Amino acid sequence: MPIKVLGYAAQSSTSALAPYTFERRDPREDDVVIEIDYCGVCHSDLHQAKNDWGFSQYPIVPGHEIVGHVIAKGENATKFQIGDVVGIGCMVDSCQTCSACHSDLEQYCEEGNTATYGSLDRHDGRMTYGGYSKTIVCREKFVLKVPENLDLKAVPPLLCAGITTWSPLRHWNVGSGSKVAVVGLGGLGHMAIKLAHALGAEVTLLTRSMDKEKDARLLGAHHVVLSTNEAQMKQVTNQFDLIIDTVPYDHDLKPYIPTLALNGTLVLVGYLGEISAHSVPMILGRKSIAGSLIGGIKETQELLDFCGKHNIVSEIELINMSNINEAYERMLKSDVKYRFVIDNNTF
Amino acid sequence: MPIKVLGYAAQSSTSALAPYTFERRDPREDDVVIEIDYCGVCHSDLHQAKNDWGFSQYPIVPGHEIVGHVIAKGENATKFQIGDVVGIGCMVDSCQTCSACHSDLEQYCEEGNTATYGSLDRHDGRMTYGGYSKTIVCREKFVLKVPENLDLKAVPPLLCAGITTWSPLRHWNVGSGSKVAVVGLGGLGHMAIKLAHALGAEVTLLTRSMDKEKDARLLGAHHVVLSTNEAQMKQVTNQFDLIIDTVPYDHDLKPYIPTLALNGTLVLVGYLGEISAHSVPMILGRKSIAGSLIGGIKETQELLDFCGKHNIVSEIELINMSNINEAYERMLKSDVKYRFVIDNNTF
Repeated sequence: MPIKVLGYAAQSSTSALAPYTFERRDPREDDVVIEIDYCGVCHSDLHQAKNDWGFSQYPIVPGHEIVGHVIAKGENATKFQIGDVVGIGCMVDSCQTCSACHSDLEQYCEEGNTATYGSLDRHDGRMTYGGYSKTIVCREKFVLKVPENLDLKAVPPLLCAGITTWSPLRHWNVGSGSKVAVVGLGGLGHMAIKLAHALGAEVTLLTRSMDKEKDARLLGAHHVVLSTNEAQMKQVTNQFDLIIDTVPYDHDLKPYIPTLALNGTLVLVGYLGEISAHSVPMILGRKSIAGSLIGGIKETQELLDFCGKHNIVSEIELINMSNINEAYERMLKSDVKYRFVIDNNTF
Repeated sequence: MPIKVLGYAAQSSTSALAPYTFERRDPREDDVVIEIDYCGVCHSDLHQAKNDWGFSQYPIVPGHEIVGHVIAKGENATKFQIGDVVGIGCMVDSCQTCSACHSDLEQYCEEGNTATYGSLDRHDGRMTYGGYSKTIVCREKFVLKVPENLDLKAVPPLLCAGITTWSPLRHWNVGSGSKVAVVGLGGLGHMAIKLAHALGAEVTLLTRSMDKEKDARLLGAHHVVLSTNEAQMKQVTNQFDLIIDTVPYDHDLKPYIPTLALNGTLVLVGYLGEISAHSVPMILGRKSIAGSLIGGIKETQELLDFCGKHNIVSEIELINMSNINEAYERMLKSDVKYRFVIDNNTF
């Protein structure tokens, strides 16, 4: 029997989020049922609630940084026990048969992954609803084990902001001796600094405002460079093996490319739109510009285990569910350090 | 005693190339002296003769695709014997101490490599002069062994057009099972097709004119796709592990990025200028845009050995030295298949 669930939904691009009762499916044989304890608030929740990308279908129950505990499971679900602390990130399913899925890169599933909300379930065709709700039902393969030594309310952002920066750090082999720069200090940027630091890299924040210096150093940055200052940028010419560019709006890449080392890569993780650059510094140093999307399930588990071992969580501000609309207003002003997390026990 | 040498030089950006007698240095202890038999004509020779890039210093003796034979050597030069058939490409020296040089990537020397012409020798500060001449003196480390089974007059373009496409093919691990696309069918493009084919890749030419189809297939392309045809381009969505973009003028990269496979790279080898692309297909498939510059000396020797083994040379049109100005005119109209080579015995 489907489960009645209380959530918060946007009913249109102009309406505030408000309580909404909907149904979750009866668990399938490989599903687990999770009572949600905390859910992170990602900037993309706001974009989708407001239909900024033009493909939203209402009602939308946002939320893809979910931490909770298992309360029931399907007959063939063996990965978790009742009571286990678990997480769900941006995906709840994928085809499992394409070469991307076979390579543990479900985020790049050739048929498209099933997003945690605003997507059609690939088995029953029903809309998926996210973590701004009391309960969720999910294929166990897409559910992560959360290390219980962590401060659980600060774990949700690891499942989107964390994995989005972790995946390029790992794909481009960042470790001891690497020099990493992070562009932008928000939800993604603050995780990129923490994770790159913990991987042993020398970390630089490239920022347009030196107001961020103190925080960046507390998070683990070894250097802070004012990216609008030509002299400072010149001093870091040919330095960085990897630049993680978390800026979510249109911005000029030209100043950053010369700061890449030979064979270095600037990876875009936050910006959807047109980019421009100059080929000469790319050719003269075999430098690359790349894109990267979240991370696969195996890699997300690896991140959570790493965070458990190194006691890494996100910097968050816990809010009550009823304060979500105010939180959205504040996010639009970048007035959050660095991620809002909903206490789902405040419904 | 310096050697008097006859060459062809541009005396200004507006003057035609004409005979010019100049001095080569007395060989240093690790130099070899080479009598030049053939010299390829690269598009960049023309750019530099005409000062298109703004940094030319006159007189210029162009030519960086040099094949000849050793006629003398310095006292400590042991790599070659008198009479050996040898080649020189785009570089004649580098610092030999930076990390790029230590990694056999002299083309990316942190102090800048010494170009075969139009560069200042890093020891005596004298201008370097290229292969449009009878003789050249070069540090033996930067001289390549040419397999003598090859048709020597068709070897020179391997030393620039060849290595410029070989280096990215090798760096991005192209081999059997790889899918490679080549954009543009000129000096570089025709070598990219031959080399990718010989490495075992499935090769596609992306072209704006189907007139090129027959030639492309003869060179080794398995497929030819009209890049201005949206339907044809859609059919190759997510296909290519590597795109070698040889186009030397401003062109839109947006149609090509979606044809890259997951983790694929489009590498620019021919265009110096501003590029633009859209980040969405890059992010959704971890796709990259990169640049690449010629190749290192070790890699160039590897290419020559590979070509010797597979009997690969360039498609060329042999010209007399005195026809160089006419050849430049024809290059400007892309009227060459696919590289002019000067017969240096026609001085």
